[in-house]
Formats: sequence, C-alpha cells, structure tokens
Amino acid sequence: MTAAQPLTREQILEAAKEALRRYGPAKTTVVDVAQSLGVSHGTVYRHFPTKAALRAAVVRQGLAAVSRDLGAIAEEDGPAVDRLRRWLAALVSRKQGYAREDPELFATYHLIAADDSGAVAEHLSALAEQITHILRDGVAAGEIRPSALAAGGRAVLDATARFHNPSHAAEWISPEIDEAFDAVWDLLVLGLARPDGQEAGRGGDGGAAVPTGTRY
Amino acid sequence: MTAAQPLTREQILEAAKEALRRYGPAKTTVVDVAQSLGVSHGTVYRHFPTKAALRAAVVRQGLAAVSRDLGAIAEEDGPAVDRLRRWLAALVSRKQGYAREDPELFATYHLIAADDSGAVAEHLSALAEQITHILRDGVAAGEIRPSALAAGGRAVLDATARFHNPSHAAEWISPEIDEAFDAVWDLLVLGLARPDGQEAGRGGDGGAAVPTGTRY
Repeated sequence: MTAAQPLTREQILEAAKEALRRYGPAKTTVVDVAQSLGVSHGTVYRHFPTKAALRAAVVRQGLAAVSRDLGAIAEEDGPAVDRLRRWLAALVSRKQGYAREDPELFATYHLIAADDSGAVAEHLSALAEQITHILRDGVAAGEIRPSALAAGGRAVLDATARFHNPSHAAEWISPEIDEAFDAVWDLLVLGLARPDGQEAGRGGDGGAAVPTGTRY
Repeated sequence: MTAAQPLTREQILEAAKEALRRYGPAKTTVVDVAQSLGVSHGTVYRHFPTKAALRAAVVRQGLAAVSRDLGAIAEEDGPAVDRLRRWLAALVSRKQGYAREDPELFATYHLIAADDSGAVAEHLSALAEQITHILRDGVAAGEIRPSALAAGGRAVLDATARFHNPSHAAEWISPEIDEAFDAVWDLLVLGLARPDGQEAGRGGDGGAAVPTGTRY
C-alpha cells in the first residue's frame, strides 16, 4: 500500500463507523471523517454525496454483513430444523451481542435505520428469504410441513422479533430472555416439524426437535 | 352527586389522562391536574404522593383495563383455538387502535411505561396467564397439544409481540401488517392445535384451524 493509493469506499465507511461510535449520529460530520483519514472533505463527498448518505451506507454495510454471515448458515447441509435453529441462534446472538458489547453504536445504528426504512425492509426481506430457503429444503426432505412453508419465512422472523429486533433491545438484559427464546422456539418447532408420530417433533409430546438446552 | 362529595381516585386519574394527552408527559404537572378539577394540588397529593406516582397510576389503570377486557374473552366458552384467536385479535386491535386513534397519548403511555418496568412486567404476566388458561382448557378438551401448553402462554404472547407491543407501533401503519399477523397465527396454530389428521389444523395441510380471512 503506497500513499498514492486512492481511498476506498470501505476505508471511508470504517472511519465513519468509528466517528459515529465516538461522536454519535447527530454530532458526526463529514469533516470529522475526512480528518481522521487525513483527506479533504471533498474526497469523502466524491464517494458519498451527503452526510445522510454516508450514515446510511454505514448502516447498510452492517446489515449486509449480518445477512451475508447468516446466508452461509442457510446454505449449510443437514436437517432443516437444526439448521433453522442455528440460523436463528446466530441472528439473536449477533444482534444481542452488538447491543451488549457496543450499546452506543448499536443505538446509533438503530436510530439511523429508523430514518432509512428501505434499508430495514430490504434487510428483513433478505433474512425472511433465507428462512424460506431452509423451510423449502426441509419440505423437500420431508422434515418440514408444507403448511409451515406456506406461512413463510417472514412469519418465523416476525414470531422471533422480540429476540433480534433492536426495538426490543432494552429487554435483552433480562435474565429470562434465553428461556423465553427457547419457549418460542419450542412452540414454533411444534408447527414446523413434520410429525413422524402422533405429535409433531421427534421427542414425542414433551419436546421440540432440537434440545432446548442449547445456548448461544 | 353533591359539591361536597370527595374527589375520587378515578376522577383524578381521568383528569391526569386528559392533561397528559394535552401537555405530554414532561409538561404535565400536578397543578394542571388539580386546576382542571378545581381543587388544590394538596388534594391531588393526598391520593398520589408524587407526580411520577400519578403518571404511573394513569398507565397502570390503562393496562389494567386492557387486561380486564381480555380476561373476559379468556373465560368464554367454546373451542380454545378459536378463543385464542379472538383473544389475540382483541389485544392487537386494542393496541393498534390506541396507537392509531390517539398517537400522542399512546406514545406518552409507552414513555411512562418504559420507566415503570414493574407495571409492564405485571401486565405481560397477567396476559400470559390468560393465554395459558385458554391453552389449559384446550388441552383438557383435547384440542390443544400438551406440548404447546408446556411452552406456555408467554411464548404465544412473545411470538405475536410485533403486532401488539408498543415498541413496534411505527410498523403498524404498514398495509401488510394484518397479513403478517395472519401468517404468524397460521404458523402458531400448526403447533398449538392437536392434529386430528396427519397434519395439525382442521383444514388439512393448507391452512390454520381458523379462517385466516378474519379481520379484526
């Protein structure tokens, strides 16, 4: 890397993220970002026409990273119910982890995203599509009920919103949040998993198809 | 009712609610409330020791009213799955209705409730218990799976949070919100309803036990 190498979009986004973490969404300016990179604000403006565009790009990049990582799980092999459980646990763990480890930046992202409903809607659609993909695999393998697929991936995403939607972040410090997630999962899996006995789930009447003791 | 009749707690709460609607939670004072009732603020303080206590009491009264009305549905006769659907539809309709018809007061309540986590926790416990009651009836009648009862009423409440939890109020203006609720309900009912065929639900593979066209 030489000094003459042009500034990349990724470098600007990284610097903007750092500035947002430090100064918050209201006080972060394009000049701050440019200064931290040792360039003029004009250079930043060449990539992002407005401060709002820069802020939105930071959040969109963050959402895309979550979606990309989860997409890899959605494509894994193996039983669909187990895969869906891993996928949901990863989503919950990512969102709750960000909120816990970097609460200011998390709140900032949430605030910016509230002004960029298109980004959020796209993100949620992408996630719902990944769930639908898993359900479709499961139906093909005879593990998932076709009627659960008919309800759709978005229904699974919505039914677990309390555990991954940033609007609920204040509730995530509750010591009961993991248990509450397990209970919702147990309920969902009863409907998702194709019964191979009189009852849905492989564990007979008492349980879900996946051990509920699994923590993430 | 004579002029000498003492001021009731209910009259003060009604006046406080009106003041909160008009001035918002930050600007509403005990003096405002007392003035609107034509009494001294000392009279109000005899019932509510602080402004915070008065605000909290208004919200608790509102939550109690919702819980009371839903409790009546939980006690109704008839099939448990249908009753649960009516119960959830009533909850969703009350919360979304308040948010739509009186958005300022709704936001005010939400803000006050955020500072009174005990009131919210109690409210949610009461609601979860009502669902559990319906599930228990359904298990006794052979309509609901025992494993759904094991997941508990709180799981049903949590799985539908997007449609009644005030944290999601901004999403309720979406034209797709009713359809999204129906999809979650379809998924839940697959797990709740005891199968009397190979698939859960009375409508075969395609559907839930309750017509999803029902709007609330």
